[in-house]
Amino acid sequence: MVFCEYKTPEQVLHILQEMWKHHDRVLGTRVPEDMAASIVQKLPAASYNPTSCLLTLGRGVSPDPPAAAPFALVVSARTADLPVAEETAQTLEFFNDPVKRLYDVGVAGLHRLLDKRQVLFEAEVIISVAGMEGALTSVVAGLVDCPVIGVPTSVGYGASFGGVAALLAMLNSCSPGVAVVNIDNGFGAAQMAHLILKRMARNDGSQAGSQTS
Amino acid sequence: MVFCEYKTPEQVLHILQEMWKHHDRVLGTRVPEDMAASIVQKLPAASYNPTSCLLTLGRGVSPDPPAAAPFALVVSARTADLPVAEETAQTLEFFNDPVKRLYDVGVAGLHRLLDKRQVLFEAEVIISVAGMEGALTSVVAGLVDCPVIGVPTSVGYGASFGGVAALLAMLNSCSPGVAVVNIDNGFGAAQMAHLILKRMARNDGSQAGSQTS
Amino acid sequence: MVFCEYKTPEQVLHILQEMWKHHDRVLGTRVPEDMAASIVQKLPAASYNPTSCLLTLGRGVSPDPPAAAPFALVVSARTADLPVAEETAQTLEFFNDPVKRLYDVGVAGLHRLLDKRQVLFEAEVIISVAGMEGALTSVVAGLVDCPVIGVPTSVGYGASFGGVAALLAMLNSCSPGVAVVNIDNGFGAAQMAHLILKRMARNDGSQAGSQTS
Amino acid sequence: MVFCEYKTPEQVLHILQEMWKHHDRVLGTRVPEDMAASIVQKLPAASYNPTSCLLTLGRGVSPDPPAAAPFALVVSARTADLPVAEETAQTLEFFNDPVKRLYDVGVAGLHRLLDKRQVLFEAEVIISVAGMEGALTSVVAGLVDCPVIGVPTSVGYGASFGGVAALLAMLNSCSPGVAVVNIDNGFGAAQMAHLILKRMARNDGSQAGSQTS
Amino acid sequence: MVFCEYKTPEQVLHILQEMWKHHDRVLGTRVPEDMAASIVQKLPAASYNPTSCLLTLGRGVSPDPPAAAPFALVVSARTADLPVAEETAQTLEFFNDPVKRLYDVGVAGLHRLLDKRQVLFEAEVIISVAGMEGALTSVVAGLVDCPVIGVPTSVGYGASFGGVAALLAMLNSCSPGVAVVNIDNGFGAAQMAHLILKRMARNDGSQAGSQTS
Amino acid sequence: MVFCEYKTPEQVLHILQEMWKHHDRVLGTRVPEDMAASIVQKLPAASYNPTSCLLTLGRGVSPDPPAAAPFALVVSARTADLPVAEETAQTLEFFNDPVKRLYDVGVAGLHRLLDKRQVLFEAEVIISVAGMEGALTSVVAGLVDCPVIGVPTSVGYGASFGGVAALLAMLNSCSPGVAVVNIDNGFGAAQMAHLILKRMARNDGSQAGSQTS
Amino acid sequence: MVFCEYKTPEQVLHILQEMWKHHDRVLGTRVPEDMAASIVQKLPAASYNPTSCLLTLGRGVSPDPPAAAPFALVVSARTADLPVAEETAQTLEFFNDPVKRLYDVGVAGLHRLLDKRQVLFEAEVIISVAGMEGALTSVVAGLVDCPVIGVPTSVGYGASFGGVAALLAMLNSCSPGVAVVNIDNGFGAAQMAHLILKRMARNDGSQAGSQTS
Amino acid sequence: MVFCEYKTPEQVLHILQEMWKHHDRVLGTRVPEDMAASIVQKLPAASYNPTSCLLTLGRGVSPDPPAAAPFALVVSARTADLPVAEETAQTLEFFNDPVKRLYDVGVAGLHRLLDKRQVLFEAEVIISVAGMEGALTSVVAGLVDCPVIGVPTSVGYGASFGGVAALLAMLNSCSPGVAVVNIDNGFGAAQMAHLILKRMARNDGSQAGSQTS
Repeated sequence: MVFCEYKTPEQVLHILQEMWKHHDRVLGTRVPEDMAASIVQKLPAASYNPTSCLLTLGRGVSPDPPAAAPFALVVSARTADLPVAEETAQTLEFFNDPVKRLYDVGVAGLHRLLDKRQVLFEAEVIISVAGMEGALTSVVAGLVDCPVIGVPTSVGYGASFGGVAALLAMLNSCSPGVAVVNIDNGFGAAQMAHLILKRMARNDGSQAGSQTS
Repeated sequence: MVFCEYKTPEQVLHILQEMWKHHDRVLGTRVPEDMAASIVQKLPAASYNPTSCLLTLGRGVSPDPPAAAPFALVVSARTADLPVAEETAQTLEFFNDPVKRLYDVGVAGLHRLLDKRQVLFEAEVIISVAGMEGALTSVVAGLVDCPVIGVPTSVGYGASFGGVAALLAMLNSCSPGVAVVNIDNGFGAAQMAHLILKRMARNDGSQAGSQTS
Repeated sequence: MVFCEYKTPEQVLHILQEMWKHHDRVLGTRVPEDMAASIVQKLPAASYNPTSCLLTLGRGVSPDPPAAAPFALVVSARTADLPVAEETAQTLEFFNDPVKRLYDVGVAGLHRLLDKRQVLFEAEVIISVAGMEGALTSVVAGLVDCPVIGVPTSVGYGASFGGVAALLAMLNSCSPGVAVVNIDNGFGAAQMAHLILKRMARNDGSQAGSQTS
Repeated sequence: MVFCEYKTPEQVLHILQEMWKHHDRVLGTRVPEDMAASIVQKLPAASYNPTSCLLTLGRGVSPDPPAAAPFALVVSARTADLPVAEETAQTLEFFNDPVKRLYDVGVAGLHRLLDKRQVLFEAEVIISVAGMEGALTSVVAGLVDCPVIGVPTSVGYGASFGGVAALLAMLNSCSPGVAVVNIDNGFGAAQMAHLILKRMARNDGSQAGSQTS
Repeated sequence: MVFCEYKTPEQVLHILQEMWKHHDRVLGTRVPEDMAASIVQKLPAASYNPTSCLLTLGRGVSPDPPAAAPFALVVSARTADLPVAEETAQTLEFFNDPVKRLYDVGVAGLHRLLDKRQVLFEAEVIISVAGMEGALTSVVAGLVDCPVIGVPTSVGYGASFGGVAALLAMLNSCSPGVAVVNIDNGFGAAQMAHLILKRMARNDGSQAGSQTS
Repeated sequence: MVFCEYKTPEQVLHILQEMWKHHDRVLGTRVPEDMAASIVQKLPAASYNPTSCLLTLGRGVSPDPPAAAPFALVVSARTADLPVAEETAQTLEFFNDPVKRLYDVGVAGLHRLLDKRQVLFEAEVIISVAGMEGALTSVVAGLVDCPVIGVPTSVGYGASFGGVAALLAMLNSCSPGVAVVNIDNGFGAAQMAHLILKRMARNDGSQAGSQTS
Repeated sequence: MVFCEYKTPEQVLHILQEMWKHHDRVLGTRVPEDMAASIVQKLPAASYNPTSCLLTLGRGVSPDPPAAAPFALVVSARTADLPVAEETAQTLEFFNDPVKRLYDVGVAGLHRLLDKRQVLFEAEVIISVAGMEGALTSVVAGLVDCPVIGVPTSVGYGASFGGVAALLAMLNSCSPGVAVVNIDNGFGAAQMAHLILKRMARNDGSQAGSQTS
Repeated sequence: MVFCEYKTPEQVLHILQEMWKHHDRVLGTRVPEDMAASIVQKLPAASYNPTSCLLTLGRGVSPDPPAAAPFALVVSARTADLPVAEETAQTLEFFNDPVKRLYDVGVAGLHRLLDKRQVLFEAEVIISVAGMEGALTSVVAGLVDCPVIGVPTSVGYGASFGGVAALLAMLNSCSPGVAVVNIDNGFGAAQMAHLILKRMARNDGSQAGSQTS
């Protein structure tokens, strides 16, 4: 995995090429659109997703997991949280982990979340992505009985302070079973979820993703 | 009304006695327990509530409002938020405003709140009191169609920063119709709710409290 | 209502078109000028106000409210606060609520505010918009007997910290009947004011706006 | 479970007695020493641990887990972090989860940690407790391949800002598989670890704790 | 002048005695009540004011300044700001500067301030002392044409952050001619005012205080 | 005086033209270079200084003050503080106040400041402009016996936090006779200095500037 | 070395006794006065200094260093900074490092510092201890040509924020050769200075302290 | 040395030319790429390094130091920290100090650092450059017995707050012998290291750099 922010396009290209020699699959995160364009030109095997800002090399299509397989669920509050939610979901897919999505279920319209509560109950681990007041994470964790990873996003303005409001809300969650990653760190949440799923898979011998980060 | 914190017991006693000469009823807020004891000794007409830390002079029992009267609803998240919730509710009672209480309905146990949603729908104005992550206010405002006044409390530890986490959460609420007062400012929320109720009462001629703050 | 910041023009256009199918009127907030231009080109029914950054669909002209109707008053301190003040006022107009404006009455020239105090006394609810030290809100709330909604703006520099100074000032107001919304959140203040006016209207059967947010 | 801070001894005693009627075991967290003394006097079945500040009712001795059972590992940096580490470990024991301890392995003496790396590799989930600069969590997560829950503690002075330095360090960890709970929230970390272990146990039918929080 | 906070009573006593040998008058600031008691016992020439926490040696009664003399005016917002206001006023008296007081004129009751505007217009320099939202300073500076020194006080709670809200408000004042000293620094404001008065006195030969700090 | 930041060029042009009709001289502050260009084109009487970002209308050359006249002294620490220092100095010149400059005398080269101490002793009021650690203000105030106005600048990086480090340093100055204005607020410092000089002038009848801000 | 804050007296006593078995000399830092009393009672070999809060075991008197030996110099700004300055100086003495003291040389009275500049020039490394605005460190580093270690202290009030103002000032020092330790961390500064002196001693074979921390 | 940020290209060019007349070598720091281009055009003797953003005049190639010479070691955590690390290393080279580099040894892959521990043990002074959680500095200082200068970098996002997380971590380091410079202040760290090396060199007569900053 290559964290691409703060690097020059030349550095990123070089690192990707080196890793591509030794690995079947390579993942670049936080790749700005123009950097991606220049890399894809020189490395046509790379494919880029402008929503998640992920750049992947060599990723075969993962077959749909069987209906009963343990899966991670990514929930998000608003359309504006989509990039971080997709960074999480696509990273899990890169790790070959079964993943489902439940988007646009912010607490301002609670019924949308409650209508879908069945999928919440079935998830093995939930990643809850929310900006502004970040209340979604507390509400979700109050409903379920599995680990919940909170991802505050920088979506908001004024006293959201670039995601600090959501971060503090999640750290102070009164619901059990919540742990938090850095603001906008969808990739980090996926890593944590992946390790949880992998441990479970090892114990029951099932087909979850086996590639570590 | 007398804000008693930061004053000496002598100052408070003097001010209360002066006001008591000219008003039927006097309210002292944020009266510490030992200050209250020394004042009640010298001013036996005063009565003190150790939960809300309010001290009142001359308040007759307000008759129960008729079942159909417009009322303010005070909701709170946890037992620890009780002092602030009661400061709000008792201040509204001092203003002769009809008030109902709905306590211990934090989002960690969402069903407790949803079971009582009828009273939420009937309220004219809601004061939502919560510490820690303060998510209750967003959830309540997402359910109702009346003004909601958020009161963050200093309940919490670590990254709650004495109520800042709850304050920021409420300021960033994604639900419509939320405005916020200072941390632990149950009295200020009651003033705001009182003015809203009074305006309505003036317009429809009903029996809401008529004493301004 | 569509909050347009943090969304792509394609997302915003798509959402507006969907809502436009099912509603008589649609409101988009925080629409940057270039996004507005590209949307108006494809959706000529849309009209855009570059001061308030609001984009509206299908809004008929609301007839002037009768002189005696209960109205909301938007006051603001400086020319630089105009965008937020207009976001508030135009949103209230979108909700069909009677609204008056009193601009450029910052406390550095107190007489300008005091000269107009009559309109302050007549308002049913006041939205006070101010940046820098935000003192206008306290002064206004000290003069009137109706609910005041404070809107801190990000106008200022240095130790204004993007509106934090004004936000803190309003949260600590020593005047009764003040509640506060997020920095620059003119739309949120309008929602709060709208709910207060609507409740009053319901109680007295008058003609205030009936569209909720 | 009862969070006892911010409550009066009378409130805590009452809640414990009510829960004790309906549950085999009850856990009280953050119980100050004097509150504990007064409760144990009236409720002799209660037992109190002054290091972890936990008060438990009805907890039988959990038999030592078999050597090969999946276990949680609590690591801590310094003697001063002991109270939070023990809050975590004893809560896990209350949940009947196998738990091992590895204390006083701060990064100032890296060899102490590296000498014990075998137990790090064997853990199913690690709770890393550290104050001051909180570097232990990054170092541990860099060594292992299982989920790591970071617990910043308020141990420190000056620019530790009551645990903020350690909290930020853990949120910014460059190692994969770290999620964080609130400052000093040993109980919350135990809840998260418990849910992870329980999921694994469910999947492989083994003997891990089955009591949820 | 001796700043007494952070010193032991022995250190303070020793320093005062040393200075008392070489100066006609000595001033100790921020002297806690119990430290003052022990000092006065050993140094009976010292006199202590428990409101301003000032301890003075050898200060003769300054004759009342003639009615027309240039004077400093200390204004304050609330009763709770009295200690800081008095620290300022009594320090100016110690410097032999003519000083007038105008207390309890916070902006929540603007008419009280406006009723006294004559004395505001006559002052040569104004020290404006206020906690909470600190709006008094902006309002005063908007009315007058002389230098205004703002003294934020730590009076307040919650989001006043120990005086930060008032400090920021004063730093962001939109009124001309305001400069600010540290929170609760009544002594520092008096020093600044004294230097301004002294310069004027030197220029016109009048009777203002001639002792520097 | 017109504060031009946060305004559109059209608004600024309009306000300047209006004021120009009624005043001999008009001052615009914080005028960005491109806004200035477009204004000067339409209002050729205006003249612009790109260092201070001041735009002036109708300002005749003020004759050099006589050598013995009371003057304000602007001191600054580094070349990078020049824009703020010049905003102060040129504003004072606009007010017709005698002003001298002492630049590039930061404490890293203390001898440069000490070599010029004579001019420090002769000034009636000093404006001390410094970014980074802001120590210049304390050192200057420790040397002189006149009022010192501290102007923190946003010059710095990292933990200067846009001028906060310098602001806090000046607020905590241990030297007597310091008061502070907002970060980069050279104009505000000039206003304060002008009022001090004007008061002195009034008292001694000398030739200092008589135009208020 | 034993950091004693956050530990129980029993823990500290136990650790000291264990270390005392294996080392000639033991140092305990940040020992509160009452903890020290109870320890000295049980461990009479221990000696305690109430100013520096250091507790030492087995420290023989270090002979006065020869006049020409390389030495560390501890400078401090005010009497209130003494405890931190002495923690530094006595720790260096514990390490057998030659140390000189220069106290009460804050920048408000610059001449006191300049009068002693000879000793500044002769020092091999300087530890500069200051609270409030922390300007001493910049001034000292501007005068000398040796490494300067800044120690901000928590001395101050209001906007000193417990030493943050001094910390930021030192981090932003415009003088060359300054590095900073945590607020009040006199011990840490002594460790740094000791390592610098030890390296020099190793290189020139002289008699500086050879005990590492 | 010339700090070039916040200056205009004209100012920088002028200063460099002036210094170039009087010195053999001149160093400009924080020179943006476009400013450098325009300067090199007019001053062809200047050479620019786009990684470190340093611009140098007249720097001859310093011969490789002998294998056994005392040297400074620059360690850094990630590729993204390279610009700051190189600013440090190249500044030391400009000062003619022997310097070695050890890059990309962040704690997420501890073995990379431990594999190179020999060079850590041999260094006379270490500059540790790290962003994000900044743990590298504590780990390095825990391994070695020489002074360590921590340089937090602004590399990171979200709760790294532009380097604050790394800064706090380094200030709270539990390892002995750490002092810290401002965020991204690679030049300042080099100055401190240079003074330490120079003192050693003076004492043992060896060939370290003799040019002061």
